[in-house]
Amino acid sequence: MPTIHDVAKHAGVTPTTVSRVLNNRGYISDKTRKKVYSSMEELNYQPNEIARSLKNKQSNIIGLIVPDVSHPFFASFASHIEYFAYEKGMKVLLCNSHLDPIKEKEYIDMMRGNRVDGIIMSSHTLEIEQYQNVQSPIVTFDRQIGDIPFISSDNYMGGKLATELLISKGCRKIAHICGNLQLNLLANERSKAFLDVVNVHNVDHVVIETDMNVFHTREYQQLIRELLLDHPDLDGVFATSDIIAAYVIKECMEMGIHVPDQIKVVGYDDVSVAPWITPSLTTIRQPIEEIGKLSIALLSQQINNEDYIIKNQLDVTLIERASTM
Amino acid sequence: MPTIHDVAKHAGVTPTTVSRVLNNRGYISDKTRKKVYSSMEELNYQPNEIARSLKNKQSNIIGLIVPDVSHPFFASFASHIEYFAYEKGMKVLLCNSHLDPIKEKEYIDMMRGNRVDGIIMSSHTLEIEQYQNVQSPIVTFDRQIGDIPFISSDNYMGGKLATELLISKGCRKIAHICGNLQLNLLANERSKAFLDVVNVHNVDHVVIETDMNVFHTREYQQLIRELLLDHPDLDGVFATSDIIAAYVIKECMEMGIHVPDQIKVVGYDDVSVAPWITPSLTTIRQPIEEIGKLSIALLSQQINNEDYIIKNQLDVTLIERASTM
Repeated sequence: MPTIHDVAKHAGVTPTTVSRVLNNRGYISDKTRKKVYSSMEELNYQPNEIARSLKNKQSNIIGLIVPDVSHPFFASFASHIEYFAYEKGMKVLLCNSHLDPIKEKEYIDMMRGNRVDGIIMSSHTLEIEQYQNVQSPIVTFDRQIGDIPFISSDNYMGGKLATELLISKGCRKIAHICGNLQLNLLANERSKAFLDVVNVHNVDHVVIETDMNVFHTREYQQLIRELLLDHPDLDGVFATSDIIAAYVIKECMEMGIHVPDQIKVVGYDDVSVAPWITPSLTTIRQPIEEIGKLSIALLSQQINNEDYIIKNQLDVTLIERASTM
Repeated sequence: MPTIHDVAKHAGVTPTTVSRVLNNRGYISDKTRKKVYSSMEELNYQPNEIARSLKNKQSNIIGLIVPDVSHPFFASFASHIEYFAYEKGMKVLLCNSHLDPIKEKEYIDMMRGNRVDGIIMSSHTLEIEQYQNVQSPIVTFDRQIGDIPFISSDNYMGGKLATELLISKGCRKIAHICGNLQLNLLANERSKAFLDVVNVHNVDHVVIETDMNVFHTREYQQLIRELLLDHPDLDGVFATSDIIAAYVIKECMEMGIHVPDQIKVVGYDDVSVAPWITPSLTTIRQPIEEIGKLSIALLSQQINNEDYIIKNQLDVTLIERASTM
């Protein structure tokens, strides 16, 4: 393997100059820079990145903690995060917390061990205190922890738009299927909006709490089937995720309940599958690409000691499709 | 920040002993090991992982290259890879190649730069030669490159099961929508099986090649609409992915063609959305959890200089649902 000395000799410069080019430090003329790069290329020189990151105290790696990347929303989130990280020369370490606090904690410890320059956190497993002790850059999605910068879309507006749509379409008894309202999640603002709107319009309603991290088909099906059996007069459902909404449509179909004629359904997120479902799903779109881009911007602002905004709320959009027509 | 010397002092051992515990080298009694770990915990000691990996010449990080993690199949693949990597003490760097050969090459260069211990590759962007020059551990999925160990599920059997099912259900003109058959992909065995089976049974057929990496809704819709208009006598479709199959069902619905009464549809992969589609999708299940587990096993066998098998073919399963009933 060629060394930095081989490159220097080939380019006719000192090893210090090669090192400066590699680390982008000090003044280097464009001509010298080009010469060094072309020598590196010709010799197929690979700088030892670990040694470099030790010197620079930066790994250019960020950690991304999601509940599970196999969930369509987080899959899309991870895809955008990776895209914008790459644009900034950063690589992404993927962590599925799978509700495992030890695993989530390990990633935070890695940050302390200089393995990652910062963390984007969209899981809700650990207690707030675990994050507050960390001095390194963190960005959270849909969770507010002390002074840590966070991003959310306008959850209250999302809940409001969804519920008002159902009411405007004539629904008189609406079920809301949501996550665990005991957790301090910004997404729970959707449920607050739901309750505010149904109360203002004096519309009959049912609220079903689930564990958002449950991905088990059978549990959803059971829950939804019971809801439909217990409330045969239900004519609207606002689910806090498109996946839950998809299960609602499926169960309705199996029980001979017509969507949207008998029950209208609104989901949340606008994941890629929402338009494939039959009938296609009305939903609240979170601006996931923008969320990804902003996550990386907030992280790199912290890493580079630039100013940043702590509270970042993005707009949502109502996407009307066949499930409420 | 506490140093290795503080830990040694606190535990009443030498710094070398602490280092041995950290690096799992040499004989250390259980008692000493426990003492060192409890001192590290008490002092909240964080070993500088970058320095350690420089010394060990291992980063314990592996690279995962997928076309796009937002695709449901690769989202599930990434989730399993991360799970099994974590079990072996390895972290996963996520790379979406997005058909960008420069990006894919960068990850390979990272491997040369000691940043990752190995790569799991399920993208098909780069030329074979780019991989053959790499001496480090690689595992590929659905692509055979020289002596690099690879995993595939039994693509030929998958294509055979799908096509035979459609014929056994009475289909007499079957369309097959597949990827780019010019690429040297193992998945193309599905198309070979399709052609073999329709020819043996003398069944009329159409083959539509697409670019598997195209995720654009509109292009799929256009393609499928044209297929259905050009061939009004079509009564079966075997699509090489569940997503394409979902679009087929959707277009049929919009054109007033009943699935499964008029056209029966079979997908491929059994991604999580397959059962939510209405009618639920008959498909060929790839054993994705097993694929993830085996990928990690093959990589760690190479890293640890253990024996490994080059050709690893796993079984597929036909999952019959409503779209062919």
